[in-house]
This record gives sequence, C-alpha cells and structure tokens, in this order.
Amino acid sequence: MENLKTKIRDITDFPKPGINFKDITPLVQDPKTLRTCVEKLIGPYKNTQITAVAGMEARGFIFGSLVAWELGVGFIPLRKPGKLPYDVQKVDYDLEYGQASLEAHIDAVNPGDNILLIDDVLATGGTAKASCELIEMLGGNIVACAFVMELGFLNGRQQLVDYPVHTLLTY
Amino acid sequence: MENLKTKIRDITDFPKPGINFKDITPLVQDPKTLRTCVEKLIGPYKNTQITAVAGMEARGFIFGSLVAWELGVGFIPLRKPGKLPYDVQKVDYDLEYGQASLEAHIDAVNPGDNILLIDDVLATGGTAKASCELIEMLGGNIVACAFVMELGFLNGRQQLVDYPVHTLLTY
Repeated sequence: MENLKTKIRDITDFPKPGINFKDITPLVQDPKTLRTCVEKLIGPYKNTQITAVAGMEARGFIFGSLVAWELGVGFIPLRKPGKLPYDVQKVDYDLEYGQASLEAHIDAVNPGDNILLIDDVLATGGTAKASCELIEMLGGNIVACAFVMELGFLNGRQQLVDYPVHTLLTY
Repeated sequence: MENLKTKIRDITDFPKPGINFKDITPLVQDPKTLRTCVEKLIGPYKNTQITAVAGMEARGFIFGSLVAWELGVGFIPLRKPGKLPYDVQKVDYDLEYGQASLEAHIDAVNPGDNILLIDDVLATGGTAKASCELIEMLGGNIVACAFVMELGFLNGRQQLVDYPVHTLLTY
C-alpha cells in the first residue's frame, strides 16, 4: 500500500485550521495506482452476492462507480439534499457542529439488494452510518462498507459496529 | 440508443417550474445499459492519443471516471468553488441568472495533455465551455467534449464551436 500512500497528498489546515486533509486527486489522476486501489477495494467482494454499490456525493461517486463497474453491478448515488430530481428518502444526521442530510431516490434500491457502500475516507463515520441507514430504510441490506482510507484517531468504526468495515490505509 | 433512452427518466418541473429534467439515476443503476453507454462514449477515442479525462462535479464524476478507466487514463475532477484542497485555477462563467465558477488543481493537467471532457448533459453549454477554458488555462489540449445527451433546443453546441462535440442522444 506504500505506492497508494504516495498518491494521497496531505493538505494542512483544510477545510479549516487544524485539519489535515487527505487529497485523493493525485490518486485518481494516476490510472495505474487507481487500478490497484479499486482492485484492492473489490477484492473481498469479487465472488460474493453484491447486487449494487452505493457511494456518497461527490468523491464517493468516483470510487463507487468504478467499484460497481468492476463488480458488474449498478451504482446508487447518495446525494446532498435537493439534488435528486425524483421522489426521495432522506436521512438527517449530526455533524460535529450542526446537521447534515443525505438523500436517495425511493426506487434506488431493489428489494433484497445486497449493497456495498464505498467512500474515499472513513472519518468520524457520521456520513457512512447515515448512508447505511438510508439504504436500509429503502429495503437494502448493507453487506459491508469499504473505504480507501480511515482516519483511525476519529474512531469512525465505532459508528459502524453493525457492519463489516474494510479500509486499505489507516492514518 | 432506444434502450439507453428508456433508462433516462423525465422529471417535470425540476429544479424549477417549466424545466424537464433528465434523470440519469436509472441508467447508472443498470449495469448493462451503463456499459453500453460508456462504450459508446469512448468509441471514437479508443485508438486516439487521449491522455486524461476531465469531468464536472457531480454527475460528470460518474461518467468521467468510467470513461477514464476504460481508456486507461487518469481522471481530472473539475469542482465547484472551495471543494478542492490544494492550490486551484478558477474560471468564472455566466449562467442564465447570475454567475458560477469551476476549479481544478493547478497540477491537474500535465503539459501537453490531450483531454476528453465528459459530462452527462450538454444543455446551454456554459459549464462545458468554462471547463474547456479551465483545462486550457492549465496547459491542456481539449481533444473533444462527449456527453450522454444534448438538449438540442438550448443550442449548447454554439458555445463549443472550437471543439469536436459527440453526444449519444439528442432531445
């Protein structure tokens, strides 16, 4: 995973002072490393019964759609409020300061779908947990949550104790 | 293309009255039709010297990253202001009412890159034209702009007369 790490850039004080942001743009701009990354993400799920992949706006759209493509299943976009045009299911959740929401179309999940949730970073786990709840509200089964990296010091896994969690890198 | 059309859903009066929105979520949820769509998008560029694909936040991330993946090149995300963590090049452009901006990292483009711009919809062409300008500011060469569909009545091609434009469906 060392090569993967070299394609993730630290940006200090973004989006606010004291935060060390993990920038994945060098990774997605490098097709060879991106291929390694996506193959590692799908590895545990290649011969399982995953029927769809869900990913959160916006960076999750990049990794999620590639993982779905390689697994040969559809991609379910989970979006910020007001972006999806059809009838939506919404989930609200708490952030460190304030609240946020995620939406999915009410027909985004087929009954009994076995869904792999994908995002680039597992941080506090708030968005990931809300995403799992949203998928379950729509009748889907979360098989696992997989992330390119986790920020271990934020204990995001504590929010996801009900699900298998798979990450490629830990900071 | 008829099968592709059946996976694009008309939503009336979204995001505001009088607009007939083209919803691509049924398409991305259907892996077989999505594969056909991406293969048709990359068709003209398979044996050309494309060195990178750029896509606009957020739906362009889905189609753009898949096209880049299939062409074996990197993906350059073009984002709304304030989202990219590193130093950015910014372009401002006019919308029907008001202004918008797009940003890319200053190291998103390698000198002499031959870039394919991808998005789901060509509407008025304002965002697409700004995207081309942004890539050129960074030293890239726009080989072509490809879209899943175009809304012909909005004359977006008039904004892109300097570039080859390829669309799969016209409404």
